[in-house]
Amino acid sequence: MDLLDLDALEASARESLDRGTFDFIAGGADDELTLAANRSAWDEILLRPKVLRDVRQIDTSTTLLGTPLRSPIGVAPTAFQRLVHPEGECAMAKGASARGCLMVLSTRATATPADCHEAAPEGPRWYQVYVLNDRSRTERMITEAVEAGISALVLTADTPVLGRRRRDAVNQFALPPNLGGPSLHLEPGEEGNLVDQAADVTFDDIGWLHDISGLPVVIKGVVRADDAAACVEAGAAAVWVSNHGGRQLDGCVPTAMALREVVAAVGAQAEVYVDGGVRRGTDVLRGLAMGADAVFVGRPPVWGLANGGSDGVELVLKGLTGELKLAMALAGVRNCGEIGQDLVAPQNDSGFPRGDDARTPSHP
Amino acid sequence: MDLLDLDALEASARESLDRGTFDFIAGGADDELTLAANRSAWDEILLRPKVLRDVRQIDTSTTLLGTPLRSPIGVAPTAFQRLVHPEGECAMAKGASARGCLMVLSTRATATPADCHEAAPEGPRWYQVYVLNDRSRTERMITEAVEAGISALVLTADTPVLGRRRRDAVNQFALPPNLGGPSLHLEPGEEGNLVDQAADVTFDDIGWLHDISGLPVVIKGVVRADDAAACVEAGAAAVWVSNHGGRQLDGCVPTAMALREVVAAVGAQAEVYVDGGVRRGTDVLRGLAMGADAVFVGRPPVWGLANGGSDGVELVLKGLTGELKLAMALAGVRNCGEIGQDLVAPQNDSGFPRGDDARTPSHP
Amino acid sequence: MDLLDLDALEASARESLDRGTFDFIAGGADDELTLAANRSAWDEILLRPKVLRDVRQIDTSTTLLGTPLRSPIGVAPTAFQRLVHPEGECAMAKGASARGCLMVLSTRATATPADCHEAAPEGPRWYQVYVLNDRSRTERMITEAVEAGISALVLTADTPVLGRRRRDAVNQFALPPNLGGPSLHLEPGEEGNLVDQAADVTFDDIGWLHDISGLPVVIKGVVRADDAAACVEAGAAAVWVSNHGGRQLDGCVPTAMALREVVAAVGAQAEVYVDGGVRRGTDVLRGLAMGADAVFVGRPPVWGLANGGSDGVELVLKGLTGELKLAMALAGVRNCGEIGQDLVAPQNDSGFPRGDDARTPSHP
Amino acid sequence: MDLLDLDALEASARESLDRGTFDFIAGGADDELTLAANRSAWDEILLRPKVLRDVRQIDTSTTLLGTPLRSPIGVAPTAFQRLVHPEGECAMAKGASARGCLMVLSTRATATPADCHEAAPEGPRWYQVYVLNDRSRTERMITEAVEAGISALVLTADTPVLGRRRRDAVNQFALPPNLGGPSLHLEPGEEGNLVDQAADVTFDDIGWLHDISGLPVVIKGVVRADDAAACVEAGAAAVWVSNHGGRQLDGCVPTAMALREVVAAVGAQAEVYVDGGVRRGTDVLRGLAMGADAVFVGRPPVWGLANGGSDGVELVLKGLTGELKLAMALAGVRNCGEIGQDLVAPQNDSGFPRGDDARTPSHP
Repeated sequence: MDLLDLDALEASARESLDRGTFDFIAGGADDELTLAANRSAWDEILLRPKVLRDVRQIDTSTTLLGTPLRSPIGVAPTAFQRLVHPEGECAMAKGASARGCLMVLSTRATATPADCHEAAPEGPRWYQVYVLNDRSRTERMITEAVEAGISALVLTADTPVLGRRRRDAVNQFALPPNLGGPSLHLEPGEEGNLVDQAADVTFDDIGWLHDISGLPVVIKGVVRADDAAACVEAGAAAVWVSNHGGRQLDGCVPTAMALREVVAAVGAQAEVYVDGGVRRGTDVLRGLAMGADAVFVGRPPVWGLANGGSDGVELVLKGLTGELKLAMALAGVRNCGEIGQDLVAPQNDSGFPRGDDARTPSHP
Repeated sequence: MDLLDLDALEASARESLDRGTFDFIAGGADDELTLAANRSAWDEILLRPKVLRDVRQIDTSTTLLGTPLRSPIGVAPTAFQRLVHPEGECAMAKGASARGCLMVLSTRATATPADCHEAAPEGPRWYQVYVLNDRSRTERMITEAVEAGISALVLTADTPVLGRRRRDAVNQFALPPNLGGPSLHLEPGEEGNLVDQAADVTFDDIGWLHDISGLPVVIKGVVRADDAAACVEAGAAAVWVSNHGGRQLDGCVPTAMALREVVAAVGAQAEVYVDGGVRRGTDVLRGLAMGADAVFVGRPPVWGLANGGSDGVELVLKGLTGELKLAMALAGVRNCGEIGQDLVAPQNDSGFPRGDDARTPSHP
Repeated sequence: MDLLDLDALEASARESLDRGTFDFIAGGADDELTLAANRSAWDEILLRPKVLRDVRQIDTSTTLLGTPLRSPIGVAPTAFQRLVHPEGECAMAKGASARGCLMVLSTRATATPADCHEAAPEGPRWYQVYVLNDRSRTERMITEAVEAGISALVLTADTPVLGRRRRDAVNQFALPPNLGGPSLHLEPGEEGNLVDQAADVTFDDIGWLHDISGLPVVIKGVVRADDAAACVEAGAAAVWVSNHGGRQLDGCVPTAMALREVVAAVGAQAEVYVDGGVRRGTDVLRGLAMGADAVFVGRPPVWGLANGGSDGVELVLKGLTGELKLAMALAGVRNCGEIGQDLVAPQNDSGFPRGDDARTPSHP
Repeated sequence: MDLLDLDALEASARESLDRGTFDFIAGGADDELTLAANRSAWDEILLRPKVLRDVRQIDTSTTLLGTPLRSPIGVAPTAFQRLVHPEGECAMAKGASARGCLMVLSTRATATPADCHEAAPEGPRWYQVYVLNDRSRTERMITEAVEAGISALVLTADTPVLGRRRRDAVNQFALPPNLGGPSLHLEPGEEGNLVDQAADVTFDDIGWLHDISGLPVVIKGVVRADDAAACVEAGAAAVWVSNHGGRQLDGCVPTAMALREVVAAVGAQAEVYVDGGVRRGTDVLRGLAMGADAVFVGRPPVWGLANGGSDGVELVLKGLTGELKLAMALAGVRNCGEIGQDLVAPQNDSGFPRGDDARTPSHP
């Protein structure tokens, strides 16, 4: 049995990284209420396994926006991966590619899309976009990504300004000067973390992103049914339920709770993804059962990267997909298509101590 | 007062057994969420005792599938009982028989049904079945069990593959070579824990088991109303609500919660049993009040066995039945027939922090 | 400010008493779930104070079954009070009488009703009854109580057999031989705790008790609407919601929860009292707001007795009544009559994490 | 990033103040259940941020009863501020004025309204009133306040008598003799904390206060819809949901819960404010989203005052307003008018473990 132990992996990363770097990755906004709630929200969703099904063959493959994948578990975009390993995003790309898992490359990367393409030409890979005040620079970045084989854009919508992360302030965390941020086309003297991100991105920019890239556009950071519907109406191909790993607005609804209302609102018209606090194959199964088409993990593959480069990434993705396979067999489902909403306890039975109305879209 | 102290008994077993063996029995799957939830779910069900009833005579006897019993508390099947006591299943059979309690002998036993029959000829005893890929071997095992006086078959449905138990992996637990598994008809070189269990058992096999044995078939491991109904439709005589003591799919609904929906779905047509986290006579009373016809305990009699062979088993079963008698007197009921659903607080008052819809079968 | 500190009082009693005696009083049945739930259930009921009322004069007086009292806080019956103070029940009677509080004398007392009458001739005092198998002995006890000025009988209904109190078993607690139990008319060789209590008392005995005493009969130990209604129909003048301080059936509904359904069922026809976990004037206010006519405390006056005889009892009763007065002023109510149900948050807002159906009588 | 750390500020005040003084400010009534519930109630209200809004400009300004303010965060009245800093209320006034925040000066101040006016002539400032038994003295106090530029009166309604604060009793806390209380017009020998406050203030006094002052009257300490409605009917211009920081009736509903029913009852006719447990900009956003027109903080600016006089007060108010601005940007709202009820999860999803009926006014 290949036993994945994410806690041990994180503990090991905590050992090997300096405190500021570890906290930059592990921490959340303010009191980290949402960071904790994301995690516990999954635990509280009860599974209702089916029995007496033929589960000799379990198939985790799926297709997202036309991209065929061996697993519905994807690598969420995380910034500056060279902070934890010298090969950074290139190693992440290799590890993800080796397991047939989708990787979403961050705008705030320490490697260009072309670097990643060279490291792992087969992908699959999408590109996460922050719109900058300088729109032409944004456009150049996207064009490069398209040329490097990116097959979808992921616009992060929950970060018009940066959340307040107390750990970083306490640690006086700053990016090391030699880290670079080639993908941002930094001018001399600019720092990757501070490049002028736009605070006036709106639903209208969805169409613009599609137009300049010719790619499907995913909106990441949505936790409301009405926003999800507006995204889809504006041309988004998918909505990604996320609260930025608890790093933006502290007190935000946990993603497992928000997922319900977003699926109810747009699940029939668009793909829906989720991230936040996912640590087990059973969490992935819960997310899929609640209607997500894919479930992303952010910190776990970074801990894998810190511990062993692309091999560490592979270990995490293989381990989680293995856990998902086992959970599927034990739940009596053979492939992603068989995973239905009845696998989790009904809405107001979901374990959330907060009633059930939030799952009804407030602006259907 | 014969004071049963199961915590002390477990602590004593922890002392006397090696860690790997103790953990193999005590542990659950993954994060052991379900292991813990099974236990706490009973605590949260509030009892509503009746007063001013004549409770001079309390009678705990009952009949399950035609088997007359002195107590509705049965011994759930647990594997490899010689791990904790040299007389293993034979001592368990003697202890259970002495208290008039049903014992369910595991397929993965370290004694044959015939051995148990010789040790405790009066029974009562049922036989738990794992269907193996080699169906003829399965049939031979069942035939032997029938010949040894078994009066019902219990098909475990929640284990098409084995759950992932982290403690066993950490401990690198392996069965001792000398343990044997005679009931499995092992070929030279086979190990009891690995014998090729079928992952393609379906509802159709219920009829097959009945046909080859001529015995009533119980399906163990059901936590859903729809599965329970399908079992009964396929010919099952009883449905046993269980999540394998939290050892299979972690995150599964606790059995006390699943019991409600299964009773609602099939309680009128078939017998319903429950296990998981039962540690007190008051837990048994709760289970019976919620509609179970019998309540099974798994680990407690094993701790009894570890502490004193058949005497230890007797101590546990006598103690629990004594606790049940006291609880019945204090609740104002004189026999199992008088135990009604009004003895526990209504469904959405059951103490589950999760609302009440799960108790309505999702696929009635 | 006369600051009552019940925790300090209990801690002091724990110091001065031997462990067996302290635990005999402080302990509950089995896992003491109900002991703890009784207490926390009050905390979870939220108060909704009124403002801008004239609260210069606060009057806590009330009348129970025709007995005028200076406070709705009464002394619940507790056994063998000479265990904690040489003057036992006589000192309790003096203390309660001095504060105008009702004392309920236990059958299992270490003083006779006549002793108490001599110690505190003004009362007010009621008599708690266990029916013994020897009914004529029971009748003699009641006759003596009536002759000693008792003005109501309180039949304890929740103790057909004694609950299992693990602390007593662990401590091997036994009554000291010199303690006596004069009120039980012990024969030589009998011990107070073991005198043959009847397990066949039924609703029919309510009429019998009334007939032989000519006194109103209160039934103590009711936690269900249907039982409450049956008591009233059988002639009970009052129903006392109690689970014997968590000492009988562990897992029983907390009294604050049971109070709601009992008040709803019989509050219009009979008086309703409550005890269990009451430790603050705000708990008393909660009980009265939920419809109780009186709120009883058991252990607190015993800790007072242990710490200072009748003075200690006075301290507790004066302190609690003072707390009640303050709570009434802060809640905007001037007398018991003004305390309405709107002072506590609505039923399913009561803080019980268990929904609200239990408050609807299941058998109205 | 100006990182406000209120915990550190409080810890620092705990260091520098004597224990009696610190506890007098930090403590609550009785078991401090309400003190704790006020705080946790905000945490449990989940935020539902909007994305893809243009949030380049965030404006926190608002107007309360005609008083224009730069922030909806106000300084609640707290007594005897010279206990923590020699400049007391004058420094508080300077700090609040510098940030454009409303300060409510307490009746029990250690500075007169005229002193504050001299210290911070621009205000904005309101005056908190306790009605004394000597109404003419009350009238003189109010007249002085009006002459010193006060623009509204705040009648504290939840303190007809003083709550019981155990910490003060244990500490035997008494005001230092040199502290004075000039605003109370003390006669020789009177102490500020004991001046004869009226226990017979009623809704009728609202009109009287308005008549003698010519100012709008705010009623502070309301937690019920019916009381709120009665206040407005009696002429109150605003209702302030408060339980006196958990210092009066312990067990009172937390203010975040009471806010809902008060807004529902009178939000359309009067302004509504809230205080109690507010410690973060996200708490302020929650309060505004639930319908409050302003959110007040009591202890935090006192800790600021203790740590640095008017500069400390500024630090707290600037920090909290900064946190609010960030929270608004992350929630997709640009000004107070855009903050709607949809920013928080629906009522029975609010995180209160107590259902939702309490939010429906019981006497609409």
